[in-house]
Amino acid sequence: MGSRNVTQYLSGGDLSSFFEPESIAIIGSFREGFFGGYVVVKSLLNAGYSGQIYPINPAYKEVLGLKVYPSMREVHKKVDLAIIMINAQAVPAVIEDCGDKGIGAVIVVSDGFAERNRRGARLQEEIVTIARQKGVRILGPNTAGIVNTSNGLNPCPYDAGYYKLRQGSIAICAQTGMINPQAFPYPRMHLGISKICDFGNKCDVNECDMMEYLAADASTNVISMYLESIADGQRFLEISNTVTKEKPVLVLKSGKTPEGARASASHTGSMAVDDRTFEAVCRQAGLLRLEQFDEVFEIPKLFAMQPLPAGNRLGMVSITGAIGVLTADEAARYGLVLANLTPKTAVMLNGIFPGLGNFPVDIGPMSVVVRDLPDQYPQILSAVTSDENVDAVLNVVWADPGRYMKAMYLEAYEQLKARHPKPTATWLYGPDTSMIAELAERLENLGFPVFSNLKTSIKALGLACKYANIRKGRLS
Amino acid sequence: MGSRNVTQYLSGGDLSSFFEPESIAIIGSFREGFFGGYVVVKSLLNAGYSGQIYPINPAYKEVLGLKVYPSMREVHKKVDLAIIMINAQAVPAVIEDCGDKGIGAVIVVSDGFAERNRRGARLQEEIVTIARQKGVRILGPNTAGIVNTSNGLNPCPYDAGYYKLRQGSIAICAQTGMINPQAFPYPRMHLGISKICDFGNKCDVNECDMMEYLAADASTNVISMYLESIADGQRFLEISNTVTKEKPVLVLKSGKTPEGARASASHTGSMAVDDRTFEAVCRQAGLLRLEQFDEVFEIPKLFAMQPLPAGNRLGMVSITGAIGVLTADEAARYGLVLANLTPKTAVMLNGIFPGLGNFPVDIGPMSVVVRDLPDQYPQILSAVTSDENVDAVLNVVWADPGRYMKAMYLEAYEQLKARHPKPTATWLYGPDTSMIAELAERLENLGFPVFSNLKTSIKALGLACKYANIRKGRLS
Repeated sequence: MGSRNVTQYLSGGDLSSFFEPESIAIIGSFREGFFGGYVVVKSLLNAGYSGQIYPINPAYKEVLGLKVYPSMREVHKKVDLAIIMINAQAVPAVIEDCGDKGIGAVIVVSDGFAERNRRGARLQEEIVTIARQKGVRILGPNTAGIVNTSNGLNPCPYDAGYYKLRQGSIAICAQTGMINPQAFPYPRMHLGISKICDFGNKCDVNECDMMEYLAADASTNVISMYLESIADGQRFLEISNTVTKEKPVLVLKSGKTPEGARASASHTGSMAVDDRTFEAVCRQAGLLRLEQFDEVFEIPKLFAMQPLPAGNRLGMVSITGAIGVLTADEAARYGLVLANLTPKTAVMLNGIFPGLGNFPVDIGPMSVVVRDLPDQYPQILSAVTSDENVDAVLNVVWADPGRYMKAMYLEAYEQLKARHPKPTATWLYGPDTSMIAELAERLENLGFPVFSNLKTSIKALGLACKYANIRKGRLS
Repeated sequence: MGSRNVTQYLSGGDLSSFFEPESIAIIGSFREGFFGGYVVVKSLLNAGYSGQIYPINPAYKEVLGLKVYPSMREVHKKVDLAIIMINAQAVPAVIEDCGDKGIGAVIVVSDGFAERNRRGARLQEEIVTIARQKGVRILGPNTAGIVNTSNGLNPCPYDAGYYKLRQGSIAICAQTGMINPQAFPYPRMHLGISKICDFGNKCDVNECDMMEYLAADASTNVISMYLESIADGQRFLEISNTVTKEKPVLVLKSGKTPEGARASASHTGSMAVDDRTFEAVCRQAGLLRLEQFDEVFEIPKLFAMQPLPAGNRLGMVSITGAIGVLTADEAARYGLVLANLTPKTAVMLNGIFPGLGNFPVDIGPMSVVVRDLPDQYPQILSAVTSDENVDAVLNVVWADPGRYMKAMYLEAYEQLKARHPKPTATWLYGPDTSMIAELAERLENLGFPVFSNLKTSIKALGLACKYANIRKGRLS
């Protein structure tokens, strides 16, 4: 890989010009459409970016009320970040201009580089060489770019139909634009985001730089990554090892199979790493490994919203016993053991309803005969959560169409929030999608993450427990 | 297990009285609420059940415009099916009444039997003994009952807020009511259902009876089951072996771990089967094994809507290359190989756009520069689908907020439908949930299943391929 030494030479610098620029130059087309410079400007304006925006293109005079400059030289102010989305052939000259202008950070959205063919690969080496000479850092090429929710920096090049993401403490990075705002309904996912970063072909800025930056970023508490390749194994190990002492890092790694590795080479032109080697790196560095793409978005919610568990004993409250059996299987898979409630709690629960003190604490049977379940439910959930034999709680909730239980659940979670003793994951099910969405939003606004399926709820708790052990091991 | 011999004695009979009754007696409370006899009557009326309904309870005169009979003896008409939802202690006497009345099928919704305690287990043995003496078949106890979409038979005891399920060819059976209409938004899931059956504690009617019934049921083309235990291993193997020659049978089995097995015993009072034994049974009987609860609902869609593949070579069209790498990994996991397009197709695609003839056929790069993608896309999808090196197709679709591509996708699928050559699975993603839902509905109305995530899309194709091989092996 020709770019590897270059990467090492450039790396280690600060990425603040990418994420906290006071001014941005956008070099592209400003024709209306679903992709391009026009959309970047629109995205930034609608997201409330408060810095200066300098669109650059000799063929336009104005876009969305902003003056368009014929060239970089005509911009007589300081520029921190350039976003380039022009034909690949024209990119080297523009990066040279950026260097001359003193711009330290460039996002190359354009594709047609190492992911396309050998000619593109040479072009990619060329821009890296220029960037090194001029002291410019490059994100990409072939990237959908970045997001910083704390300053309205959402220069999404694809029209997502919305612009403001929910602010929060989760950073998501990937070697694909499939994490950027055009790909998922972020506002509906109750996902509090600090930063998003698509590395694209990662000819320069890579997962190591990003982890270093995020480790020091006060607004980020959990890092979730999807990687196809590792730019520099040794540095990755060292940085991971440091970052995971402070913040959990979740990693989905593709290219596990030879087929996947081949596909990776044609996607971003990068080499995959052997999966067993990667597994060993994860273990050594305290990284938490993911298995499915959805998990990149779902699992970090638990880390962002809930405390770490003190142990691996899982308590469970459910309106259906059937789910208890599946839970027992999944819990075992993710290193959790089913909690035996203390005799005191079990006796108390059995006093409320016969058999309630078992695993799971199944409120199903009592829900159909006991009229005062709504009064007793908060006490039941609280008793399980505060039991000294319980370290983490799974709560399975039926969003019933009669809305009989909505107030009951909200009351119970309000009480939990006041005490907030242990990590709780919730799986909501029911016949009405809008009711599930509404109850999920209410619970997540209270600080309790809701997961889209049973397995993910349990895995999130299992990984939280694993991370708590990793931290304990490091500290002792 | 005391009930095992009894089960064998009773089994093998016809279940048509359960699913095609011309008259139903409902024994329970008719007080308004979210659960109970009142809801059963409401569910039946709203689902358009056209048979006779006889509510029975001495404390009521009328419910929802129907006469309530003080006792079974007062019903002077023939009754095919009784649904019982009264206190467990009172159930044996009512089953005796049912037998005396000549009712051959009884659904015992009531809980408090073998799943509760030893006393409940004895009560369960008692009702089985009575049923055997009187020639009555029992579904349950502790069941949420059944659905038959072809005759409006939806006696759901929990208020689901809706009553008509989409008619189709998928039968879903489980040892839990978590498959019944109160648990999932069936109308939104584009899931065409033929029958639903919750076995509950399965003191009598079990998965073997149901498979036999469904094998002969002309409205069912695919069977999806969730089981905690197997009532009779030898019979299960024999029946599965026969049924899978005609119809695919998908099975999720819980209680894999000792923890799961213990939880199963307390849920429905049944014994779990060793997982390795079950795995061997599945292999021998041609059953397709599932891993997650969601899959019970999602995977059968492919079998219900699409033809079986002739081989295991996966073609892929995508608007994002990144997903190709994850796909390659998952495809390898589920026994699919990445198709090499024929030179003719590859040359044609590369002529449309450089590099388009690779795996995956990535329309991402051309989508941002080529204005006539909408005209070319149907041709691209068609070329991949009809390529002789391709047996099954995964299509990854971006539901873009500009609606730029909606017409293009619909046109392409209309053309596919006209030719309909090979099984196609679609994963839709995008920033707007309502747009995803709308496009999913349009595609599924055309007969193309849409899956909620990448992994499930690929697994569905993998299992279809596996089943095609099983059928071929059996026939040769």
